[in-house]
Amino acid sequence: MWRKKGYTVAFVPTMGALHDGHKALIERAVRLADRVVVSSYVNPAQFNSKGDFVRYPKRPGRDRQLASGAGADIYFCPKTLYAVDASTWVEEVDRSQGRCGATRRGHFRGVATVVVKLLSIVQPNWMILGEKDGQQCEVLERVVRDLYLPVEILSHPTVREKDGLPMSSRNMRLTASGRTCAGLWARKVRDAAREGSRLAVSHLRRSLRGQKGVRLEYAEVVGGKLWVAARVGNVRLIDHRKCGRQ
Amino acid sequence: MWRKKGYTVAFVPTMGALHDGHKALIERAVRLADRVVVSSYVNPAQFNSKGDFVRYPKRPGRDRQLASGAGADIYFCPKTLYAVDASTWVEEVDRSQGRCGATRRGHFRGVATVVVKLLSIVQPNWMILGEKDGQQCEVLERVVRDLYLPVEILSHPTVREKDGLPMSSRNMRLTASGRTCAGLWARKVRDAAREGSRLAVSHLRRSLRGQKGVRLEYAEVVGGKLWVAARVGNVRLIDHRKCGRQ
Repeated sequence: MWRKKGYTVAFVPTMGALHDGHKALIERAVRLADRVVVSSYVNPAQFNSKGDFVRYPKRPGRDRQLASGAGADIYFCPKTLYAVDASTWVEEVDRSQGRCGATRRGHFRGVATVVVKLLSIVQPNWMILGEKDGQQCEVLERVVRDLYLPVEILSHPTVREKDGLPMSSRNMRLTASGRTCAGLWARKVRDAAREGSRLAVSHLRRSLRGQKGVRLEYAEVVGGKLWVAARVGNVRLIDHRKCGRQ
Repeated sequence: MWRKKGYTVAFVPTMGALHDGHKALIERAVRLADRVVVSSYVNPAQFNSKGDFVRYPKRPGRDRQLASGAGADIYFCPKTLYAVDASTWVEEVDRSQGRCGATRRGHFRGVATVVVKLLSIVQPNWMILGEKDGQQCEVLERVVRDLYLPVEILSHPTVREKDGLPMSSRNMRLTASGRTCAGLWARKVRDAAREGSRLAVSHLRRSLRGQKGVRLEYAEVVGGKLWVAARVGNVRLIDHRKCGRQ
């Protein structure tokens, strides 16, 4: 209806548990468009681990407040986006390979499918994504291009805690010692990316493998960026940084 | 732009080589909507056989005339809908099983993918499909439902030649004797469906296996309908009929 009236619409898809990173996306949407839709849906299809899905932080009341406080016009919380006999998948088979795609089987298929559903429902002019989920941005840009979806994707720089840890809903689940560990991890990633050499990356791998409380999933240079995923306790963290001194 | 002006749009996707079946779809679209878009695109991704793709009839000049004669406002002939590095697929994994899905590997994935692309580009209120491609209708209804695509599918009854052969662009490729064969095939399918019993279907199978020039692919009752596919020469024919006397 808004589109028919000539209003532009910006859309920020989230999985709830909003933090200042989300807030930055919503504020950007508000500057950009006449109307802003924020969705909150913890998409079961993109969790390769049931435990991660069950433990994903949820706090709907606070989220709604944060979204409308940041300027969202609609806070859209579908109960489900999958009929019991849902049988349609959107799958991107190039950019979803490697990195998180290698370790999280089916993850990007779930992401692509739910985002196409959300775009069909919201029909925005712009979709604003956090760069923190970098491979997700790459995959969704490809999906939007390939399927000619009538939306433009804007990605917003990763918002970080003071110690450099990328903001993530999953951070809420870190213990105090885990949080310290995660901060150290983030600094090591930053330093290795600054260095940018193959030697620095293999040094990072060794260092993270030796860091207590951290389980390294991958550390790879792809497209001039250093991409890292690790677990601290049962919390999965990801980050990526441009290689070289900025 | 039409949608912004408040016009309704009906869309008829085709692979060109238009015949009276397509004409009936276009005329229905004209009765229904303010504006009618007909697309013509021989989608490489839905051909499981390269030979079938290469031999698929093409006659663009005549097609354009037929479409505009029937009332189409736009006759849309994209050169390609796949970038060289296209890597996104839409796949329906339930209704696309069995029947044509069993013998034409990847066919319905190609159909679903290209139709989502076309719907993104055309953004119609209605998409009108020929019932002759019955399983295709079932698959696309599921895709549209599952992905919340903002379009309504209408399916139009199969248009037939005088002897009951469903109209199909592929019929143009039948030889004179193949055409006779195909007519006989269609009458056998009609009679078996009227009878509707398991005995009649197994009799049909035996009869088609014995018919010179015909290679039966399948004959199955699914959802109260008899579905049959066969080859006459190198031309693939499909039909389905409600079981029981109408």
